Order: sequence, then structure tokens, then C-alpha cells
Amino acid sequence: MSKAVPEAVTRLIEQFSRLPGIGPKTASRLTYYLLRAADEQAESLATALMALKEETRYCSVCHNITTEDPCAICADPERERLLIAVVEEPLNVLAIERTQSYKGLYHVLHGAISPVEGIGPDDLRINELVVRLENQADPATEVIIATNPGLEGDATAMYIQKRLKASGIRVTRLARGLPTGGDLDYVDSMTLTRALEGRVDM
Amino acid sequence: MSKAVPEAVTRLIEQFSRLPGIGPKTASRLTYYLLRAADEQAESLATALMALKEETRYCSVCHNITTEDPCAICADPERERLLIAVVEEPLNVLAIERTQSYKGLYHVLHGAISPVEGIGPDDLRINELVVRLENQADPATEVIIATNPGLEGDATAMYIQKRLKASGIRVTRLARGLPTGGDLDYVDSMTLTRALEGRVDM
Repeated sequence: MSKAVPEAVTRLIEQFSRLPGIGPKTASRLTYYLLRAADEQAESLATALMALKEETRYCSVCHNITTEDPCAICADPERERLLIAVVEEPLNVLAIERTQSYKGLYHVLHGAISPVEGIGPDDLRINELVVRLENQADPATEVIIATNPGLEGDATAMYIQKRLKASGIRVTRLARGLPTGGDLDYVDSMTLTRALEGRVDM
Repeated sequence: MSKAVPEAVTRLIEQFSRLPGIGPKTASRLTYYLLRAADEQAESLATALMALKEETRYCSVCHNITTEDPCAICADPERERLLIAVVEEPLNVLAIERTQSYKGLYHVLHGAISPVEGIGPDDLRINELVVRLENQADPATEVIIATNPGLEGDATAMYIQKRLKASGIRVTRLARGLPTGGDLDYVDSMTLTRALEGRVDM
């Protein structure tokens, strides 16, 4: 960039640009916004960033992000310990928690199998899941695979199902079909195909 | 948010959400991305944020953001000192510099007149512009008003033009018309009207 821009500005624009979904234009907009905002705002953001890694770790049971180990969900006596939902990312735990319709435990894989990106089963917390289920202290009767409804999520689900077959534990997947509130005209044909295949009696 | 989320995560999501154009969903996505990224990335972003305000100030001549005062542009003997382009924001200086077709100086207003937002002429660096032009050491012969082509930018341009009338300095505005590479069918009618009004002989 030209010398019209102080280095401190260029550096922050570069750092913002490294974030996913933030291009150079948005990065400049954010930087110039912070320049005009109260000093406190850039500082609060910096402090929150520093605290992020310092104050968080992974739960040794479910591998979700947590401050305490085991995490609040694993340590909660109110949760149904017989049910484990397997998700790709910590954000997915949040999405399921928001429904308030799931009271079981979780297992976070931290990714999905993706040959394209070179991510294999051993890069995920799948072995940890198998060990956890073998452990008598955590006697799950059902594993709900809640990976994302896409190619990689499906591959991961298939792999886990195979790995758990011998254990005799019931393995289920989230239902696929029409999203509530959607319009049939706007639904993609893969979703409609899955909705047809999975049709239920009324 | 539920107790499934450590406070350090919630705090960073909140801080990201305060940025313009970043909603709660994007804020979570960025936060969880940084959780997975190398420690170095969150740290570099935090460092860049802290440096932003510490290392930058406003140029006392043109009010652009700078490390040194006067700024690199104002101090550059190669620039045409007879021309001053008046812009709303430091980002606008960048946009004009990128064209590489302007060699004059700048004056940054830090906003535009907006009765809706309660921003009047005295909240902008308009008086500073008048004083600067009266100052014999900076003898501009033309002021190019390069405020944004909208209601507020237009109001600001009109106000500045009136304020400078008595000075006898030539006051111009950026041309309005069709954007290069656009399609007539997709141009809004206000732009098309301006293009018609401003038509030039071939």
C-alpha cells in the first residue's frame, strides 16, 4: 500500500484479512472503523483475543472448548449420560444446545474426514470416542451422529458407524429432509430427494 | 449463552459483534476459527489492535491518519500544493491514491453533514479547511470536493462551496455519471439522471 497509510494501519488490515470470510475491503473498513471508535473498543477486542487461548482448553472427556476440565456439560449430573451426540465442531454443540431439546452429552471431533484437505480419521477425535465408549465409567447406549449434512459429514458418519458396529451400541443419525419454514420451490434437489426417501407415514 | 460456552469465548464473540457489519453468527465463526488456529494468530491480531491507536495520530495539516506529523503526503515535495481534494474519511484518501492519477494534497473531514445522525458542520474539519486555505503558506488555487455521491456527501459539498465562495478559490466536484464497465440496465435511475444531466459533447 502507498505511504499514505501508516504501518500500524496496514498491519491491522493484514491481520483482519487473515480471518475467514474477511477480504481486504472489509479488513480496511474494520480498521478505519476502529481508528474512529473510542480507544476502549480496540483495546477490549485485543484483551478478549489474548484471553481466548489463555483461559480456554479442551475438555478431556468430550473435547469441547471449556474453562474447567471436565466441561460444564460433562460435569452436569442432570444430563443423560446414556446419550452421546457426535459433532464436528464446538459451534455445533452450541447449535444443538440452543434447541433446548437435547439433554445428553457430546463428543467433538474437531473436523470431518476430507481427502481433499488431507484430513483422515486419525486427525479427528474418533479414536478418543471409541476409547470413551469402551470405558465402563461412561456407559452410553446410543451415539447420535450429528455431523454436517454434506459429503464430508456423511463420510465421517459412515466411518464412525463402521468403527462402532462391533460395540453393539445403537448408532443413529440426525434426520434429513425439508427445513421448517422453507418453500418446496427453493429447496435443492438433493434435499428433496432425501425428504422423499425419508418420508414418514402420517 | 448457555454454560456450554466458556466466558472467554462469549466475550470475544461480543467484541467481534460490536464491529460494523459483523453479526453474532459471523462473530462466533471468527471466534471458533481463532480457537482452532495457531496461538500466534490471535496474538498477532491483538498486538496489531493495540498498536493501532498507540502508533497513529492525525496529521495537523490534512487530518489524515499518520505516524509522522505532518503526514507523508503533506510532507512530500513532489505533490502539487495548489490542489486540495476534500474527502470524508481516511479510506477515501486511499481510494484516490490507488488511482495514481491525483498528485495534489488532501483534507479529511472525518464525516459528512448528517442532520439525522446529528452531525453538523462544526463536528467536521471544515473550519480547519477554511483556516488552512486562508493561510498563505498553503496557497491552494483549486479545491476538489470529493465527498461521497449521496445525500450527506452532497449536503457537505454544498456547505463547503458556500463557505469558500468569498475566498475566490476555484471549487470543483468529482463528475457524476455511469460507472465504467457497468450495464445501462443495471444502473439506478438517479445515476442515469445524473449521467444525462452531465452529458458531454463528443
